[in-house]
Amino acid sequence: MKLREIADRLQCRLEGDGSVEIVRVAGIEQAQPGDLTFLANAKYLGQLATTRASAVILRAVGAGQPAPPCALLVHDDPYSTFARALALFARPAPPAVGIDALSSVAPDASIGPGVAIGPFVTIGAGATIGARTIVYPNVVIGPGARIGEDCVIHALACIRERVVLGHRVVLQNGVVVGSDGYGFAKQPDGAHAKIPQHADVVIEDDVEIGANSAIDRPAVGETRIGAGSKLDNLVHIAHGVTIGRRVLLAGQVGIAGSTVVEDDVMMGGQVGVVGHVRVGRGAIAGAQSGIARSVDEGTFVSGSPAIENLAWRKAQVVLRHLPSMKKRMGELEQKIAELEEQIAAWPTPPGR
Amino acid sequence: MKLREIADRLQCRLEGDGSVEIVRVAGIEQAQPGDLTFLANAKYLGQLATTRASAVILRAVGAGQPAPPCALLVHDDPYSTFARALALFARPAPPAVGIDALSSVAPDASIGPGVAIGPFVTIGAGATIGARTIVYPNVVIGPGARIGEDCVIHALACIRERVVLGHRVVLQNGVVVGSDGYGFAKQPDGAHAKIPQHADVVIEDDVEIGANSAIDRPAVGETRIGAGSKLDNLVHIAHGVTIGRRVLLAGQVGIAGSTVVEDDVMMGGQVGVVGHVRVGRGAIAGAQSGIARSVDEGTFVSGSPAIENLAWRKAQVVLRHLPSMKKRMGELEQKIAELEEQIAAWPTPPGR
Amino acid sequence: MKLREIADRLQCRLEGDGSVEIVRVAGIEQAQPGDLTFLANAKYLGQLATTRASAVILRAVGAGQPAPPCALLVHDDPYSTFARALALFARPAPPAVGIDALSSVAPDASIGPGVAIGPFVTIGAGATIGARTIVYPNVVIGPGARIGEDCVIHALACIRERVVLGHRVVLQNGVVVGSDGYGFAKQPDGAHAKIPQHADVVIEDDVEIGANSAIDRPAVGETRIGAGSKLDNLVHIAHGVTIGRRVLLAGQVGIAGSTVVEDDVMMGGQVGVVGHVRVGRGAIAGAQSGIARSVDEGTFVSGSPAIENLAWRKAQVVLRHLPSMKKRMGELEQKIAELEEQIAAWPTPPGR
Repeated sequence: MKLREIADRLQCRLEGDGSVEIVRVAGIEQAQPGDLTFLANAKYLGQLATTRASAVILRAVGAGQPAPPCALLVHDDPYSTFARALALFARPAPPAVGIDALSSVAPDASIGPGVAIGPFVTIGAGATIGARTIVYPNVVIGPGARIGEDCVIHALACIRERVVLGHRVVLQNGVVVGSDGYGFAKQPDGAHAKIPQHADVVIEDDVEIGANSAIDRPAVGETRIGAGSKLDNLVHIAHGVTIGRRVLLAGQVGIAGSTVVEDDVMMGGQVGVVGHVRVGRGAIAGAQSGIARSVDEGTFVSGSPAIENLAWRKAQVVLRHLPSMKKRMGELEQKIAELEEQIAAWPTPPGR
Repeated sequence: MKLREIADRLQCRLEGDGSVEIVRVAGIEQAQPGDLTFLANAKYLGQLATTRASAVILRAVGAGQPAPPCALLVHDDPYSTFARALALFARPAPPAVGIDALSSVAPDASIGPGVAIGPFVTIGAGATIGARTIVYPNVVIGPGARIGEDCVIHALACIRERVVLGHRVVLQNGVVVGSDGYGFAKQPDGAHAKIPQHADVVIEDDVEIGANSAIDRPAVGETRIGAGSKLDNLVHIAHGVTIGRRVLLAGQVGIAGSTVVEDDVMMGGQVGVVGHVRVGRGAIAGAQSGIARSVDEGTFVSGSPAIENLAWRKAQVVLRHLPSMKKRMGELEQKIAELEEQIAAWPTPPGR
Repeated sequence: MKLREIADRLQCRLEGDGSVEIVRVAGIEQAQPGDLTFLANAKYLGQLATTRASAVILRAVGAGQPAPPCALLVHDDPYSTFARALALFARPAPPAVGIDALSSVAPDASIGPGVAIGPFVTIGAGATIGARTIVYPNVVIGPGARIGEDCVIHALACIRERVVLGHRVVLQNGVVVGSDGYGFAKQPDGAHAKIPQHADVVIEDDVEIGANSAIDRPAVGETRIGAGSKLDNLVHIAHGVTIGRRVLLAGQVGIAGSTVVEDDVMMGGQVGVVGHVRVGRGAIAGAQSGIARSVDEGTFVSGSPAIENLAWRKAQVVLRHLPSMKKRMGELEQKIAELEEQIAAWPTPPGR
């Protein structure tokens, strides 16, 4: 694609030769001639002068900056522009539109126009698949599931019976939505009787769920992932959890049953949250933190159990000094004992 | 279903109008007219007076309590009764009894009466499937696997060659049983040669394993999950591990190789246990704890590395005060230095 | 198999009766007559005298040691010899060589000689599968993927479009290679726009990846797992990560985006590493540690955030004493206040 055409499609201002042929989008360090790269983070500014890319997306060239050795695509939001540039060069490989002959689609399932269903896909009775949704091979969609338009369901994902997905939902490979929640009632003999888990799961519009994550269904009520939330790989969402809108959960996060995570929360990798608590709007949880009680709106917490981030960081700094603190304390006790002895040896002060 | 019929089937005492039609079981907060709800936890007692449910399962109405605004089903164990009520309204969606034409079942596999096998299921040579077991779509069962009666194997689960499952075992979606253990022998050149992992895995009766969990097979000996144990999603059980009976492992727990977890142990989410240790009968491990050595029977441990829970809690409380402790210690040292100086300035006491 | 034949094939020195029939390889505690066992760890030396095995692989019988009650296979590296003995008795159960009639293989896919492809396998357009590679049932291989020779792809694994696997790679069940990385660009309205993730994933020779692990692909550049590295179950490798050669990652490890893990690194279970850092050659991370910044070559780190292991261990020891330290500090402050009061009561020393 000519750089001029890319500039037009990305609505960038072009500075330099628009006739150069662009074949790929690449990072600034790896870029080669023929590549389009981008500069969104000032940290990489130093690499601009020596990049081998044929063109770079950036905000603007600073006053005192040397001109980069390539053409420029100028835009106020270079990172989002880079994302859109990648889409121009995307090489997805969906199954062909239509229903593969080697699939098992219930006669009463409703399949929208433009849907692509790959081989070895199972679609249960009464399920509905919205227009233009792509179902990759070996996906299992249970009876009565309702899937919106323009969704992408990657290979080997599973959408259980009666689960509801909105529009533009993306499930990566191996995702399970609607597995039975972990609910058992202890019996007098110590055994755990299964509490049937047949209630609802709703995944709202524009949610993406990472590979091999699992979202459980509850016994009563619902499990819900709010619009625009993004879950990374191997995330565990227990039964009855409510995730708000635009929530970001990094890899291997686990949320226990009935907990509420409000809008715009962000959790780092491997965070765990106990059941039946509320994580307030816009709160942030540092990687590996363990949230054991409700968290106020906008709070940044860290540690296990999680406390306010600043307090945690200060405690962590001191933690390394604990052995020397213990030693110093012993020395202090020794000195004080000596002082006490010295003072005791003095006569009672005059006037007492 | 009429409330009177439900009362009969759940063996509850009915108080109120038995002719009301019940359409669903719901939580006390969400319940609507037509719903049956339950009260098992005194915490929700306050909501009883205002519930919109048509009936409620409970232990009894206390002496001073106002009568709830609906019919009652009285039972000594309301939580288990709720579980049984859910089963009355269950809406499972298993494949039809019989072998789907789009499956691949070895001619010499033994399929019991009443078994349901969905599409795209593979069953290997010599495998046996007990009566009434349900095998959902796209499940893979290896050669020589032996599966008991009344099991439920959800879509996309995998039971590897020669694995043994008891009766009434439930595998959620994406579960892997019998993958190769992580065993390698370091070679003189630094490479790691694979130690073949071909020994046994046994899953005893009434075990349930959560979505996308993985249970490895060992090189020698066996991996075993004891009767009635319940594993949540994304749990990792390494090769040669022995899990006792009625053990509860919450989401994302990981148990390293050859460790023994005795009967009735409970572990919170994201707990890790090192290899070759023993976790004693009835022990409890708090969420995210890291068990680095054997744990005595009945002990409650927390933290990473895990210590006795009470000691851990006390240390956690102080942890927040570490920075102020460090500051106070510096002040003490300063004061003592001053005192020492003051005392040194005094003449030798009389008589010395 | 006769013990004599085993000795020949494993190149061991045989001491004792070579005509005994060996039926199995077993651990020293479980071994029965007919079993071959091994002694690689001095810890189990005491069990040698009473083993019921018919033969044992060991380094040599020590001078003062009693002769074991069975035949011996003497070898300098008993553990690797045990691994090779297991291979003699391996009972794998691959699909038959050839392409199962119930698979979906693109007409232009290139399938090498001796390849075995099971039922319900999907192989996309232009994919290549090297000689003798085994593809178990219900595996999905995307368009343009390139898989080397002698690989083993277990049931229900997924290799996405254009992913490259070297030779002798083993993917356990449910592994996902090439899922979309977790990359989003925040928009002015708070929404997160997907950054297309279409770049490369390379898995080098002799890598093994454990059940239900997930390896993401990046937007630009590549994700790479170096030759001979071994990943356990449920491991998460984010987009753009580079894993060196002979790296060992235990169960449930998670590595965030763009991080570099150099050759011969070892990580214990549930370790987390933040993005954009470097873990130096030969470094070791203790189980559950959280690596928040780059780690020097050869360093052993522990804790979350991870610090040098020795410092961490010392701090952990003191951690238990924190409550008593706090108490002692209060006592010191009290005593000093008393001393100050006593000293203040003295008249100014002579000469001041």
